[in-house]
Amino acid sequence: MKKLIDGPDAVVADALRGMAAAHPGLRVDVERRIVTRTDAPRQGKVGLVSGGGSGHEPLHIGLVGLGMLDAACPGEVFTSPVPDQIQAATAAVDGGQGVLHVVKNYTGDVLNFQMAAELAGDDGVDVATVLVNDDVAVEDSTHTAGRRGTGATLFVEKIAGALAEDGAALKEVTAAGKEVVERSRSFGVALTPCTVPAAGRPGFELGDDEIELGVGIHGEPGRERGPMRGAAEIVDVAMSAINDDMPLQGDLLVMVNGMGGTPLSELYVVFADVERWLSGRARITRSLVGNYVTSLDMTGCSITVCLLTPQLTQLWDEPVNTPGLRWGC
Amino acid sequence: MKKLIDGPDAVVADALRGMAAAHPGLRVDVERRIVTRTDAPRQGKVGLVSGGGSGHEPLHIGLVGLGMLDAACPGEVFTSPVPDQIQAATAAVDGGQGVLHVVKNYTGDVLNFQMAAELAGDDGVDVATVLVNDDVAVEDSTHTAGRRGTGATLFVEKIAGALAEDGAALKEVTAAGKEVVERSRSFGVALTPCTVPAAGRPGFELGDDEIELGVGIHGEPGRERGPMRGAAEIVDVAMSAINDDMPLQGDLLVMVNGMGGTPLSELYVVFADVERWLSGRARITRSLVGNYVTSLDMTGCSITVCLLTPQLTQLWDEPVNTPGLRWGC
Repeated sequence: MKKLIDGPDAVVADALRGMAAAHPGLRVDVERRIVTRTDAPRQGKVGLVSGGGSGHEPLHIGLVGLGMLDAACPGEVFTSPVPDQIQAATAAVDGGQGVLHVVKNYTGDVLNFQMAAELAGDDGVDVATVLVNDDVAVEDSTHTAGRRGTGATLFVEKIAGALAEDGAALKEVTAAGKEVVERSRSFGVALTPCTVPAAGRPGFELGDDEIELGVGIHGEPGRERGPMRGAAEIVDVAMSAINDDMPLQGDLLVMVNGMGGTPLSELYVVFADVERWLSGRARITRSLVGNYVTSLDMTGCSITVCLLTPQLTQLWDEPVNTPGLRWGC
Repeated sequence: MKKLIDGPDAVVADALRGMAAAHPGLRVDVERRIVTRTDAPRQGKVGLVSGGGSGHEPLHIGLVGLGMLDAACPGEVFTSPVPDQIQAATAAVDGGQGVLHVVKNYTGDVLNFQMAAELAGDDGVDVATVLVNDDVAVEDSTHTAGRRGTGATLFVEKIAGALAEDGAALKEVTAAGKEVVERSRSFGVALTPCTVPAAGRPGFELGDDEIELGVGIHGEPGRERGPMRGAAEIVDVAMSAINDDMPLQGDLLVMVNGMGGTPLSELYVVFADVERWLSGRARITRSLVGNYVTSLDMTGCSITVCLLTPQLTQLWDEPVNTPGLRWGC
């Protein structure tokens, strides 16, 4: 294993130190592993907190800022954050209007956020939760009962974040987050595996001509392994799986997300193929192409689609100012 | 070789199709391989044109937009764009105040931009050139006489782009670009090689415990091969090389750039080490951490440092709106 690190156990803390140095607009508590907006808590604003295992970059710590998260709790690589940490983040961003937890559907995350919500409730904070489970590839998986939460998490954070910024109440912000989940689906493909620093070797193996269709963001098994093929054929597998589950029509938000080790040019090739696949069925009106919910150094990509409404489009377009996503301000 | 492509010879055109679909704010001429701002040519504004081999993402085509490039010409992967293409881009963005060519110091790029400048001159366009040669690792290399041009290219494009946006004359914009070159230095490190799609196999080989110190952005040899080591030690080699060439003091702009296959968290670890290395010598007042001038899927990073002045800082902070770099608007 060759990685740019100063010890496999120090990666998360060292990366947080780097974030603190690079982004003076964020408050980075390296000790407690909490990243917050410097203006938190904002009185009268619903707080947004997310978190999860590290290694899905820039999610979540890179999505803290105006118009998105108020705080993020990174766990160890591919490991859930702990309840105390989430509770502290929740308290730190509560401006009296309650806090929304955005939780990817993995058993550890679900349990720990639930426990944190109870602890925060004991502290008098009103907490609601949006559970993201957009991955159509498999039902139940290595770390998940039900469907896994992947790329749609970013959509939820952006759209619920915009609504919270506009001063909406917790109930409305939560409803918008749930609406995004209901209208979003994802499918991922791995060409090569990823290596967790503490493990020191790839988490799974793939042959020289083999790919994993429907892979999870921790390298969990997908639907099947098959031979390598062209991008258009891979897109057909992914888009067909999504479309079978949620017929695609109208205006779409589409993200082609790199798994971490894939060149941007390949993601644009995939995006061109997605647009071609959708031709005559639906229209891409908003998009993201790049690394947003990675699996460390895995090569491959995931495709996430959201059926837009005029309100969701408007919220998507509102200003956002985070290290990983920035426009309009 | 496993890549998300639809044929190794179609990568550049297919990626441009994806860019066209994803960024309606850009004019993408897939046939002629020119990406321009939709509002080009802007009367009274100096035009900025850059280009070079594809594979150094998002440079250059992802840096077209307000406050940065007016046009970019992608060549084939790791191959210079051709004179006709550059001439056409130059003509397309000439608003009557002349055009600046930002050229990385590789023999092919230098010759082809020079020829294009002569052709554009025959057309009556006033063309100036800034040659970027910031890489301190080696003097002369596989594709270069003198020093290679790498990360500082982005600094030049941003700062000269801001000045052009402000309405400065070609002479001033050129002088600012040259000032950035004079005040910037880079050093790169490869942990694993990259694979050009048309070649189908890695461009060079590195052992399981071996790294290339001073690597070029096409995988050209650096100063030496050595054993893998911690990020802080790698940073010491890179920063010492930079500091030996240009003593670091005052306010710095620092970019920790991923080579394409390296997780963002590792780049933040490196950034933390760079800040620690600089402690007591100089102060990082502006920074970028991420993939900006990649080498396809290579793992590793490069560090680029610019000695800021108040004017350069102000120009760096001005609004920019491109797919790859965006703030303040």
